Amino acid sequence: MTRKDVLVQKDLLGTNKEVAAEIRKELRGRGILCVNLLSSPGSGKTALLEGLADRLKGRFRMAVIEGDIETERDAERIRARGVPAWQITTGGACHLEAKMVGKVLPGVPAAIDFLFIENVGNLVCPAGYDLGESLRCVLLSSPEGDDKPAKYPQAFATADVLILTKADLIPYLPFDPAGAAREALAINPRLRVFRVSALRGEGMDGLAAFFAEALAAERAARA
Amino acid sequence: MTRKDVLVQKDLLGTNKEVAAEIRKELRGRGILCVNLLSSPGSGKTALLEGLADRLKGRFRMAVIEGDIETERDAERIRARGVPAWQITTGGACHLEAKMVGKVLPGVPAAIDFLFIENVGNLVCPAGYDLGESLRCVLLSSPEGDDKPAKYPQAFATADVLILTKADLIPYLPFDPAGAAREALAINPRLRVFRVSALRGEGMDGLAAFFAEALAAERAARA
Repeated sequence: MTRKDVLVQKDLLGTNKEVAAEIRKELRGRGILCVNLLSSPGSGKTALLEGLADRLKGRFRMAVIEGDIETERDAERIRARGVPAWQITTGGACHLEAKMVGKVLPGVPAAIDFLFIENVGNLVCPAGYDLGESLRCVLLSSPEGDDKPAKYPQAFATADVLILTKADLIPYLPFDPAGAAREALAINPRLRVFRVSALRGEGMDGLAAFFAEALAAERAARA
Repeated sequence: MTRKDVLVQKDLLGTNKEVAAEIRKELRGRGILCVNLLSSPGSGKTALLEGLADRLKGRFRMAVIEGDIETERDAERIRARGVPAWQITTGGACHLEAKMVGKVLPGVPAAIDFLFIENVGNLVCPAGYDLGESLRCVLLSSPEGDDKPAKYPQAFATADVLILTKADLIPYLPFDPAGAAREALAINPRLRVFRVSALRGEGMDGLAAFFAEALAAERAARA
């Protein structure tokens, strides 16, 4: 069977967990670091990917799978940065599932370094669905408030990385970034925490460097 | 059977729609305007209720049902304004359902004018669940971006009122409030649109006046 056939079969037969495990094995085997981005609507997932595209280009090849309920808007924004992007429109569903990623995967070029998956904007439901990623990042934007980790714990409990976004707005807000990080770390002490403004560039070089290191670590673990 | 018994029975037997219809009938019969607030996490639902509490007090009696996955935080904030509040913690569920409201309702004082229900922060799933409200309000905060109505259409399609929140941040953002309203109205032309900053007070008197008129209209329709 071809890889596509295997994925299609898993799509029909497997549970989400099984399909996700197959995707992870496949992507790790190809030396691709897969990153799943989770957050509320409008926390800045697409802007973060635009900023990473600008910083990784030339050195790394990336591709993006965009999840949305409706519209191709986010994929168009990513393509405008010269990065291949696939839009999954769920048509009402509140999260991506591994089988949806599995359907897109055969079309994604084999020779890439990073596959970023932008989940449907929803801080609740996507946390329950493994997509086969090696790294899960949860974004929390400063206007959402520093009280969100305890109110929406699963996204923070299951993530590897917390990215505090829209740092440029902090001067205008009642938002305590250290408090937000503390609350998230109380739920999940192994979280790596970053603070960025994709709009102004603050912290974005450091985040791009972190992903480059994570890619190198994943490839070294495989060797 | 008492009202409580009726609600408990409906809770066991009825579908969400049936329970919601029962709640709506009950509240309308008592002359209470029930308002369901929907939005992403951190769009400012609780801050809006705090601002309304300050503006309605003395003239009207209000009560609040707070929906969250975890924590009593929002109910505590409302109680600190002198308004009775009940916290429903869904323990993982991504939306409120009518039966959850039905369980709380027997404890809510009969002699109130407004019952506000703050849904779980989620722009997707709560849109599918009627809670028995007479008015559904969707909040969109300026930092979320003006492209959200088309990406999350159901919340906008099913609402009566669109409240653009955090207007004080617009000078620092790439956000077009007229464009956001236009996109929402293309989905649902009957939306009433308000623009507020709960933090600074902008637009809040007008919104409180709108709710007072809606209450009067509902009571007039009953008479």
